[in-house]
Amino acid sequence: MSDNVTLRLAEMRELSETILMDNGFNKDHARSITDIMYACQQDDCHSHGLHRLLMCVESIQSGRIDGTAVPTITDAGPSVVRANANKGMSLLALQAALPQLIEKAKKNGIAALAINNCYHFSALWPEVEKLSEAGLAAIAMVPSHAWVAPAGGTRGTLGTNPLAFSWPRRGKHPFTFDFATSQFARGEVELYRRAGKALPEGVAIDKDGKPTTDAEAAMNGAMLTFGGYKGSALSIMIELLAGPLIDDLTSKESMEFAEGKPEAPYHGEILIAIDPNLLSGGKAVANDERAERLFADILDQGARLPSQRRYVARENNMKRDAIEIPRTLYEELLTLRKS
Amino acid sequence: MSDNVTLRLAEMRELSETILMDNGFNKDHARSITDIMYACQQDDCHSHGLHRLLMCVESIQSGRIDGTAVPTITDAGPSVVRANANKGMSLLALQAALPQLIEKAKKNGIAALAINNCYHFSALWPEVEKLSEAGLAAIAMVPSHAWVAPAGGTRGTLGTNPLAFSWPRRGKHPFTFDFATSQFARGEVELYRRAGKALPEGVAIDKDGKPTTDAEAAMNGAMLTFGGYKGSALSIMIELLAGPLIDDLTSKESMEFAEGKPEAPYHGEILIAIDPNLLSGGKAVANDERAERLFADILDQGARLPSQRRYVARENNMKRDAIEIPRTLYEELLTLRKS
Repeated sequence: MSDNVTLRLAEMRELSETILMDNGFNKDHARSITDIMYACQQDDCHSHGLHRLLMCVESIQSGRIDGTAVPTITDAGPSVVRANANKGMSLLALQAALPQLIEKAKKNGIAALAINNCYHFSALWPEVEKLSEAGLAAIAMVPSHAWVAPAGGTRGTLGTNPLAFSWPRRGKHPFTFDFATSQFARGEVELYRRAGKALPEGVAIDKDGKPTTDAEAAMNGAMLTFGGYKGSALSIMIELLAGPLIDDLTSKESMEFAEGKPEAPYHGEILIAIDPNLLSGGKAVANDERAERLFADILDQGARLPSQRRYVARENNMKRDAIEIPRTLYEELLTLRKS
Repeated sequence: MSDNVTLRLAEMRELSETILMDNGFNKDHARSITDIMYACQQDDCHSHGLHRLLMCVESIQSGRIDGTAVPTITDAGPSVVRANANKGMSLLALQAALPQLIEKAKKNGIAALAINNCYHFSALWPEVEKLSEAGLAAIAMVPSHAWVAPAGGTRGTLGTNPLAFSWPRRGKHPFTFDFATSQFARGEVELYRRAGKALPEGVAIDKDGKPTTDAEAAMNGAMLTFGGYKGSALSIMIELLAGPLIDDLTSKESMEFAEGKPEAPYHGEILIAIDPNLLSGGKAVANDERAERLFADILDQGARLPSQRRYVARENNMKRDAIEIPRTLYEELLTLRKS
């Protein structure tokens, strides 16, 4: 028996929507959450694919997430949209606010979307990719929980604070990246701990603030940012822009709010969308070629563009109309179906 | 005899303006360039202080910079200002466009300034600090010359591409950082070369794309970005946003344009200004306190905020109304005075 189960793309969608709705999310939430898991699974991003259904169900069972919350969208200034998720998952609020963000960016040149009061579990790249499909450059940032120490610090204050960016390419998948500003993702440290493997140097400190390669000690201490003091500065910027700037929680406040409950972090998110046409004085087409020469020069020397592997996986999975997930995950998911 | 010369703050300004005007910059350019050098020198940022007068003079002597260029400011969309430096130094264009950028950010919530066709030598932190003095959060980015290889690459394609960010703090100096996305600054590698010192691992590759700690080989090869593939992705983002997005040159195009001449790089710059008041739905004061708790938590564990040293230097230098520069630099500067 294979260790993997193969699902057709439509089956994957159906499975995800059913599990979510069986556990208290309404159809709108189930769809918007499924859309993003579908995108991740299609690109073989297993960490943010169907696996996250477990967290979604656990989150709603903890009793604080509103699975039927209707987001409130506010026009908060000529170039600002605010989306109050009203204690629901972030994705429905994003979906509801996206058309207005796109419209404002195209009309004004640059616009920002603040999503507030949301539970958040998803990868950011599908969100910025969507903005690039509309012809825009886009940046997205979220805090998380205070597991990461600032450079020179001794304890967790910052989140894993991912930064995602996307650039539209004519007739091609966008140039997109999405990385945690911590050296490792929290889940990676956990995998090292379970495997009893030593962490590389420079990834974590213990509870006394001393460097450690012991994953158990790291889980009780703090992770470090990537790139030393520069990554730390970037992470603080993300705390500020996706937190106090938009009237929402820092990673530390979000962790306090969670009270150790096994639910998705509760905080805000910021997206910035920029129109290449207005920014270039109407010369976006000519400048696209300039960007393409940059990409070509990177590829020509054997380097990879950030999302290349994902796009290859997407094409393969779409062609064969199927994805694979571990049998253990599949069986666990089936126990969450009630209908 | 001391190795340093002490200048009063007013003397420093006068020396800088005189040298610039004696060498072909008009009064407006001389003032805007001096303002930024003054700010750097006042904060003991020697690398971007009076030392840069040598580069400014060399640049104008190369015959391509227009020392009398009048920048053209265009309202390019409700949230976009474009400033054409018309082949002058960037700083006068910045100064001329800043009021409009601030006005648009405060009215619309977020706004962008594209500076085009400028020669650029200056640190970015004084620019974003200025926006924070006006109560705004700000980001600035520029390309440079293609001295930096992308992650997994073998040759220079990216610039040292600095990223600067600033966050306004009530009654305090702003939270500000400004770092190169290359592991080292170009000038640092040059210092290692002159001193015959080995570079640390992971800073550079030689002309065949192989890792090297030999500074001479690094100068003929390429530098690496900070933080591996994440820093590389960030650097590519800066190429795109401060280049093709705003109809201006990439680092590679800028290097080709220079034809090896000893002048400041010629390219564009992007600044993004964000209004905490509109983004927070009018709750900027309450959220300031949230940001202050974040800073306090960082300081409390013995970590430093990015610009702390600069602010201490500034206070000291302002109090004693003096700065110090190396005697050798001072003597070299005197030879540039013609009046």
